[in-house]
Amino acid sequence: MIKGKQSLSFTQAPFLMSSGSVVGSKEAKGPLGKYFDMLNTDDLFGEDTWEAAEGTMQKEACIIALGKSHRGPEEIRYLFGGDLLRQGIATSMGVEALQIPMFGLFGACSTSGEALALSAMAVAAGYGSYVLAVTSSHFGSAEKEFRFPLGYANQRPMSAQWTVTGSGAFLVGTEKSHVRIAGVTIGKIVDYGLKDSQNMGGCMAPAAADTIQCSLEDFQRNPADYDRIITGDLGYVGTRVLEDMLKRRGIDITEQHLDCGKLIYDQEKQDTHAGGSGCGCAAVTLAGYILPKLLKGEWKRILFVPTGALMSTVSYNEGESVPGIAHAIILEHC
Amino acid sequence: MIKGKQSLSFTQAPFLMSSGSVVGSKEAKGPLGKYFDMLNTDDLFGEDTWEAAEGTMQKEACIIALGKSHRGPEEIRYLFGGDLLRQGIATSMGVEALQIPMFGLFGACSTSGEALALSAMAVAAGYGSYVLAVTSSHFGSAEKEFRFPLGYANQRPMSAQWTVTGSGAFLVGTEKSHVRIAGVTIGKIVDYGLKDSQNMGGCMAPAAADTIQCSLEDFQRNPADYDRIITGDLGYVGTRVLEDMLKRRGIDITEQHLDCGKLIYDQEKQDTHAGGSGCGCAAVTLAGYILPKLLKGEWKRILFVPTGALMSTVSYNEGESVPGIAHAIILEHC
Repeated sequence: MIKGKQSLSFTQAPFLMSSGSVVGSKEAKGPLGKYFDMLNTDDLFGEDTWEAAEGTMQKEACIIALGKSHRGPEEIRYLFGGDLLRQGIATSMGVEALQIPMFGLFGACSTSGEALALSAMAVAAGYGSYVLAVTSSHFGSAEKEFRFPLGYANQRPMSAQWTVTGSGAFLVGTEKSHVRIAGVTIGKIVDYGLKDSQNMGGCMAPAAADTIQCSLEDFQRNPADYDRIITGDLGYVGTRVLEDMLKRRGIDITEQHLDCGKLIYDQEKQDTHAGGSGCGCAAVTLAGYILPKLLKGEWKRILFVPTGALMSTVSYNEGESVPGIAHAIILEHC
Repeated sequence: MIKGKQSLSFTQAPFLMSSGSVVGSKEAKGPLGKYFDMLNTDDLFGEDTWEAAEGTMQKEACIIALGKSHRGPEEIRYLFGGDLLRQGIATSMGVEALQIPMFGLFGACSTSGEALALSAMAVAAGYGSYVLAVTSSHFGSAEKEFRFPLGYANQRPMSAQWTVTGSGAFLVGTEKSHVRIAGVTIGKIVDYGLKDSQNMGGCMAPAAADTIQCSLEDFQRNPADYDRIITGDLGYVGTRVLEDMLKRRGIDITEQHLDCGKLIYDQEKQDTHAGGSGCGCAAVTLAGYILPKLLKGEWKRILFVPTGALMSTVSYNEGESVPGIAHAIILEHC
């Protein structure tokens, strides 16, 4: 079960039974728009506030994932969920109605990896037949939480990323599907001392490099053993940093590497600068774009590596650096 | 392994090998003061900010817990940690130096229960021989995060609780000690619609009632099967609500019930109104006061039930209610 330094390999690998993806208007207009399950044109999802809208996205994503597997919330043993907001209110407001025993998580934009890892660990250990993993982010709530209210129309540097309005939910369980979670590598906090919160890709890239290298070593694999290595949301800046860092360590992932932050928007037409970010970015890209390719067998094995920047407005204002963390999930067609 | 609706019973129960408790000046002067491992008189722990001080408390608590078991951080497979601050910065700043693969958690003041549950689940599943659980809170950082900066000298209603400055860390593992984690009950979000964030005990009591009732049913036990049932931090107001609610459901826990929020301060002499609260309250009370009694066999079996109020300043300002959550941990002398 234990593999190398930071990894687990599941002898009876849990299945990723189904997923649900819910996005806002900008994501629906992007290159992956047609792959998502549900979209909303005013980004409020029938609510009065961005925060309640984000909660509703989480609930809808869970209901869609459950519906696709013909399961009700009462059949789900545990839920692992999180978001970017202070005290994780989008998750607590969103999943309350489902009444599933729940674990609240925070791993910044790496939370979808954390939730999937813990869900797989719980199912593989026999702690439940069905477990839900859900994460979300919302452009409106995140700008308010981390930067400026939208009404300020603040300018953004070219290294800044655009927080994805979206939520992805995943039903992990013992029931056979064509995608299984074969293993996980849990990341450490990696801090290169960067303090520019408007360059999150740069802040997170060292953590992604650390986790990818560790995962390859733990499982004694090369990048070519994966059809794709897909980072969460390093965007255009972070992607270059990651690929350069790994090359200097003798690891070339450029042929396999994709990044959800680059995939989700059309950089030129959508004015999204360095790409997408947020807990929802990697989650909806996995649900809408990556999983179907694994299900069909177009890709046989991928390494999914959501990345997070561990910062708050308080830590930023107090002059602290922005450390990163990344978790790797091995997904296989079966 | 699976027990009833929301619980797990561990056939090979993990041991609570050692603990570390670090507190501030007010806690050191309270009735439990002499039981804690480390205290600091200016509550800054050598740092410049409350947030960095809180991080340092987490690090010190981990180092103390490791030291008591003669283990180094490099031997610890995973760490589960959390705090009350936005984006969990106390945890990420605090545990960074330990370089242990980590899962960030948020469950408000229930996080010590969440961290202990996940640590026990990971060890019982064979995912690691040693796992750390750590949580913290700090009066200065919490007042700034949730209410008013200390300099305002704001008045507090009698139902308000005093956030504990403290951090508790627990080493959970396969190595025999005299306390084992026999089982856990994971809580749901329970929302009775209360909106008074200055009465957190009242907001959390329904969740505590729900989890305690569920745990007793899942394990087919009566309150008398436990030497003590110890809630996290309901304080004086929440304790009365909990005991009344359970009595109406035919469950009388008044003989067994203790509350960490009532134990940690001298209500009259320390001007703490409805009692203590915060992620650190239940954690340091468990480490300093409860565990020694279990180790000696003075208590044979207790139900430890940290409780959390899932709110933020944003959700409060937007008029949302304050739902609660509670997780129950069964600790046995062995």
